[in-house]
Amino acid sequence: MTDTTSISLDDAFALSVSVLVSNGYSADHANAIAKVVCAGQRDECHSHGLYRLLGCVRTIQMGKVDGTAVPEIIDHAAGIVRADARNGYSLLAFDAARGMLVDKARKSGIAALAINHCYHFSALWPEVEALAEDGVVAIAMTPSHNWVAPFGGRKPVFGTNPLAFAWPRPEGHPYVFDFATSTVARGEIELHRRAGKAIPADWAVDADGAPTSSAEAALAGAMTVFGGYKGSALSTMIELLAGPLIGDLSSMESNAHDNGAGVAPYHGELLLAFDPTAFTGSSAAAHAQRAEVIFDAIVDQGARLPSQRRYAARARSLSRGMMDIPSALLAEIRALVKS
Amino acid sequence: MTDTTSISLDDAFALSVSVLVSNGYSADHANAIAKVVCAGQRDECHSHGLYRLLGCVRTIQMGKVDGTAVPEIIDHAAGIVRADARNGYSLLAFDAARGMLVDKARKSGIAALAINHCYHFSALWPEVEALAEDGVVAIAMTPSHNWVAPFGGRKPVFGTNPLAFAWPRPEGHPYVFDFATSTVARGEIELHRRAGKAIPADWAVDADGAPTSSAEAALAGAMTVFGGYKGSALSTMIELLAGPLIGDLSSMESNAHDNGAGVAPYHGELLLAFDPTAFTGSSAAAHAQRAEVIFDAIVDQGARLPSQRRYAARARSLSRGMMDIPSALLAEIRALVKS
Repeated sequence: MTDTTSISLDDAFALSVSVLVSNGYSADHANAIAKVVCAGQRDECHSHGLYRLLGCVRTIQMGKVDGTAVPEIIDHAAGIVRADARNGYSLLAFDAARGMLVDKARKSGIAALAINHCYHFSALWPEVEALAEDGVVAIAMTPSHNWVAPFGGRKPVFGTNPLAFAWPRPEGHPYVFDFATSTVARGEIELHRRAGKAIPADWAVDADGAPTSSAEAALAGAMTVFGGYKGSALSTMIELLAGPLIGDLSSMESNAHDNGAGVAPYHGELLLAFDPTAFTGSSAAAHAQRAEVIFDAIVDQGARLPSQRRYAARARSLSRGMMDIPSALLAEIRALVKS
Repeated sequence: MTDTTSISLDDAFALSVSVLVSNGYSADHANAIAKVVCAGQRDECHSHGLYRLLGCVRTIQMGKVDGTAVPEIIDHAAGIVRADARNGYSLLAFDAARGMLVDKARKSGIAALAINHCYHFSALWPEVEALAEDGVVAIAMTPSHNWVAPFGGRKPVFGTNPLAFAWPRPEGHPYVFDFATSTVARGEIELHRRAGKAIPADWAVDADGAPTSSAEAALAGAMTVFGGYKGSALSTMIELLAGPLIGDLSSMESNAHDNGAGVAPYHGELLLAFDPTAFTGSSAAAHAQRAEVIFDAIVDQGARLPSQRRYAARARSLSRGMMDIPSALLAEIRALVKS
């Protein structure tokens, strides 16, 4: 068992902001980042929780990210918002552009937000969930560093290239998924390495292309795509849409830009928003009820909706007002606060 | 070995039109359908080739499809084209709406085409490939009948819910994929049944939820999703976007509408188009070259692009001016022509 410590949600947020600000992030960036890593910890998504503060500090210490960048939001076309993150993290750019994206989706029916020139480390579900709270259906995707081999190959080309989706529901939380198109998230392998645990042999190949159960060998080799040639195709789509389409770096180019520093990927992010009312007008509410029939048919046979476990964890954290974090990690994070 | 017959591309097209028109389809519908099934046969996609004419005839004989419907194309919003297929097949509606979709994508950057009230049997790659020829990046998706169980379940909820994508390339054919989110396409299981062949045990479960190698038991049970919970999530997304979002039927509702007739699904289809020039202006061509680096990195290590095999088959068919079709199937199709 890992030794864990309970920390209140408010204390975790204050600690996160303190770590970030004392290491050179502006208050705006610190708040945007703290909100997302605390949401991850609250929902027991440990690989996207407070653990990520270590990477945020390392990335600014390496001189890679601009911790005080002010994102520029551009009304680019009837269906396109561009957000130039100006070498800052993506999260503040998303927060700043969110309103314009939703407005355009309401007017045009569908709209895209292209975030450019951003460092990126965060899960995508907080963003699509926020858009669903605004009443729109949302999709998000990004490349990362080229860590993942295409199906049938052994050399890394793709990032872990996550795809996230949110669908607003008439009551309660939206339907949300957020998955890496690699077999597992990179963070899972990193957590195994930190814990000294072996990984399943189908997660990755080593530098020679052979399956490996060593997390270290996996990190030096290539991760596998999920779902064979179909997952590989989906990852290619994400690489293209959130890369060349929006004029930003591919996962290979992001890695080249990193140049061995080992910090967060630097690239773009693409979000799409669809307004149900723009599609079906006054009958949108009735169609939303028809979607509930689909969810019921999944849940009623004992299968799970992808967000169910996370929402249950959230309810636990919120009712306690506390969340758990490995004690060693908490100590490591506290040590990052510069006085 | 199946006994096959060679037929010229022109003869196959004329035969297809003749089958369709003599069974009650208008010349416009017959041409739209013949174009697509002949393209499937030409590209050696047998499960979406001339074989599909049998289903087209059965569907109109059952009184389900309107073979003479004239689709209505509606300029619904800055980013939305609606095409009401009026109970006809989807293909003519797509052909009629394609120009407006591309125009809107050029003006707004991104646009959606919602085809409603259509019968559907066709592969999606001919449509996204056509859009890529118009210079836009394209995505297409549809539900079908509820044939596929969610991950962790055993009762069918989803259709085979295909996802297709096309990316225009500076030279030669676009990058195209088109895959079912079920482990295999429904047509593959039907072809196995026709051939009396066993199916792999991971393709489907029987009516009691047990894995089966019987194609007939699979068709009476539930197909599996590809890629575990991630494929299941992707299939849910398609069910929602190409169903309730556009005000059309889910796969469960399509099956209920079929009411045991066993004909083509009746539902909607969603297509998205992105104009690269709207996103990145005069640098779009340079970004398209950066996409080529991604394709090269896949192909150069011996992995395959999803459309490679199909384009090679197309080149063979076009250079011969002929394509091969099982002799028994050809006889069955010829017998459908009513004099």
